[in-house]
Amino acid sequence: MTQKKYLLNESDIPKAWYNIIPDMENKPAPLIHPATKQPITVEDLCPLFSKAASEQELNTTDRWIEIPDEVRDLYRIWRPTPLVRAHGLEKLLDTPAHIYFKNESVSPVGSHKLNSAIAQAYYCKKEGVTNITTETGAGQWGAALSLAAKHFGLELAVYMVKISYNQKPYRRSMMQTYGAEVISSPSMSTKAGRKIITDNPTYQGSLGTAISEAVELAMSTPNCKYVLGSVLNHVALHQTVIGLEAEKQMEMAEEYPDIVIACFGGGSNFSGLAFPFLRKKLNGETPHTVFIAAEPESCPKLTRGIFQYDCGDEAGYTPLIPMYTLGHTFSPANIHAGGLRYHGGGAIISQLKHDNIIDAVDIPQLETFKAATMFSRAEGIIPAPESSHAIAAAINEALKCKVSGERKTILFNLSGHGLIDMSAYDRYFANDLANYKVTDDDIINATRDLEKIL
Amino acid sequence: MTQKKYLLNESDIPKAWYNIIPDMENKPAPLIHPATKQPITVEDLCPLFSKAASEQELNTTDRWIEIPDEVRDLYRIWRPTPLVRAHGLEKLLDTPAHIYFKNESVSPVGSHKLNSAIAQAYYCKKEGVTNITTETGAGQWGAALSLAAKHFGLELAVYMVKISYNQKPYRRSMMQTYGAEVISSPSMSTKAGRKIITDNPTYQGSLGTAISEAVELAMSTPNCKYVLGSVLNHVALHQTVIGLEAEKQMEMAEEYPDIVIACFGGGSNFSGLAFPFLRKKLNGETPHTVFIAAEPESCPKLTRGIFQYDCGDEAGYTPLIPMYTLGHTFSPANIHAGGLRYHGGGAIISQLKHDNIIDAVDIPQLETFKAATMFSRAEGIIPAPESSHAIAAAINEALKCKVSGERKTILFNLSGHGLIDMSAYDRYFANDLANYKVTDDDIINATRDLEKIL
Repeated sequence: MTQKKYLLNESDIPKAWYNIIPDMENKPAPLIHPATKQPITVEDLCPLFSKAASEQELNTTDRWIEIPDEVRDLYRIWRPTPLVRAHGLEKLLDTPAHIYFKNESVSPVGSHKLNSAIAQAYYCKKEGVTNITTETGAGQWGAALSLAAKHFGLELAVYMVKISYNQKPYRRSMMQTYGAEVISSPSMSTKAGRKIITDNPTYQGSLGTAISEAVELAMSTPNCKYVLGSVLNHVALHQTVIGLEAEKQMEMAEEYPDIVIACFGGGSNFSGLAFPFLRKKLNGETPHTVFIAAEPESCPKLTRGIFQYDCGDEAGYTPLIPMYTLGHTFSPANIHAGGLRYHGGGAIISQLKHDNIIDAVDIPQLETFKAATMFSRAEGIIPAPESSHAIAAAINEALKCKVSGERKTILFNLSGHGLIDMSAYDRYFANDLANYKVTDDDIINATRDLEKIL
Repeated sequence: MTQKKYLLNESDIPKAWYNIIPDMENKPAPLIHPATKQPITVEDLCPLFSKAASEQELNTTDRWIEIPDEVRDLYRIWRPTPLVRAHGLEKLLDTPAHIYFKNESVSPVGSHKLNSAIAQAYYCKKEGVTNITTETGAGQWGAALSLAAKHFGLELAVYMVKISYNQKPYRRSMMQTYGAEVISSPSMSTKAGRKIITDNPTYQGSLGTAISEAVELAMSTPNCKYVLGSVLNHVALHQTVIGLEAEKQMEMAEEYPDIVIACFGGGSNFSGLAFPFLRKKLNGETPHTVFIAAEPESCPKLTRGIFQYDCGDEAGYTPLIPMYTLGHTFSPANIHAGGLRYHGGGAIISQLKHDNIIDAVDIPQLETFKAATMFSRAEGIIPAPESSHAIAAAINEALKCKVSGERKTILFNLSGHGLIDMSAYDRYFANDLANYKVTDDDIINATRDLEKIL
């Protein structure tokens, strides 16, 4: 467990977020308005999102977007986060690879999600919004936004995916402790929720469903905005503080990553770590660096989905997004990595994957818990089930190095700790967890009608 | 929530622990062997504890004890910890006081307990021990020792107080994830446990009972040592890294505390924060600084116990300790601050209290949760129920300043986060928690025969 931490000073917290779109040769196709089928404008987005988030979402020209002082000031609660050389894991694997992880689990809510929650809550407050609403899977995003909403004096309602609401009651408690209202989704409080409960009374929910409920609440509540924790460009933008710090820290370590890995749900932590490093790949400086999105075998949009316009939510309220998708009606298995149970990848990531600039792997649930247990014992930090996908992928790459004898430098994002997910570990140790491989038919069925969506 | 953190470099991690005894005018009375009734020697302690811990326990002459490189190296996993100016809480209270907290919750197990766990596990390993055993209340100590035991390749059995075993299943899971065995105490696996279960089948356990079980296991198992998480002098010694770092950080803030506060179970985190600052009070440099141990109203040994030799455990296996005690058969109420449910204070603390060098306050359970909720919303960190006693005491002092108009500097120890204790918050919000005031009769009954103990 002998660790080497690379620590930055508060003055090293980035002063601007990095927008990757200006550096992309093939830009992502535009978001499309679900009613008019025309490309979305800032005016279209503003009823739903804050004006600042709407502008950031469609900004394809400014490479750097200044972080407001108020946001940077709150980042100082836990940022900069450490970069850690995982000597303990390297020793356990007996690999010549050098493994580093960016430790985003040190935030007071236990994950990277606070990076965007603070920014989005700040913009809402600044624009005079009083109420906000969102969805959450495992609850990492919901907990982060609850803290941010409380700080800025905003009322918050969180639709939490039912399976996670039951699996992870402590995250529900965290949100309530910060003063938010939490509703199990699907719920009877929205049209979208009522329809799903009526059609399928035992449905355990999905992020797509919870988004529909939150959007519906926002659209029907005065002075209420919707806030999203992943998928969209502005969320990825805010998360780039992770990679911008990691770049400096890898310089301190006098190494540069050959492989950059993060788990993948909608793209928030993957984008956050990867985009700053991708910048150097896109401009030709570091063509050899490989980027791997690690997704669950049970929700494999990047590895097995189709590249196609799809809705961001189950009910079809959101803009149409050009993405790798399993279909917005895809019903993911009840894995413990609740944050990764989303049917599609963000537009930027999907374009990069389509252009073979990034790679993706899918990992069975049991392998992620095996990796998580190894990591806990070797490095002392119990990871979130989501982050365990990145760990499993990093272990696989390190073991390849053991076979080949190559001394590659691997960097992954520890997006969160798993202290609220301990019941999942209990089930793993009791041999009470399973793998869930998606069949081709599942994907064909859920994506069958997508071509007609435009 | 606008925070100011004071951060040290890894090179600032203390190189020696501070032993307060040489600076005390009235030394604590010696530990007494329970069979011979003679002062304990290092040889008496060695069958139970590592030799290094035994020597440290009885060391009354060396002011500074070097921290082994291997221990300092592991401290680097999370140390130095931040000192934080709690601007958010100050604003909420509208107090002229300046409130600082040392944030020990950032360790991978979520509390300060790792400071001593690593040291004790290291000494056991170095001396060729293969198995260790301990007790734990809320599980903070057990989780910390599980991590340390795994690192040094020691087998560990943890007796966890039954009420906490049921209230805090996630801490049990954490210990198991790190590879430790966890037994609910009282258990049928020891003579001490069997007797208690037979006498009182519904007894929910106490730290005193769990210590008896762990000591019995250690004494009856080959090459097995017992490891304690609080009360004893060597544990307090290891924890002084907290206060030694905080001293430097208060210098960075250009302030010196008028009031130093920590919660109080057996004394580990109180000693850790307070002793380095007490040093300057004992040598006359800072006579005005006040030290407050914050204990639960339901287990008020310092405020209402008697100063008397007593056993460290329920069955009477341990050395007799000169302490403020409620009696080793005292049965504390089932409060959620499981780490504070111990009948006595350590010998050093008790002597300092007896000499009026430190103060103590006792705080009702509901007041601690009210304080914890305020702190969560103002500072973003959800505190452990134990640490919430320190927060409540700090708030009370800050409110006194508001009345008097004094601009005092208050420093408290945030000994751990409460993410594993969320069910307690649920019960608080549901109005399902109570206060438990101890009656005079309870104390008279439990301490009645103590005078005959020697």
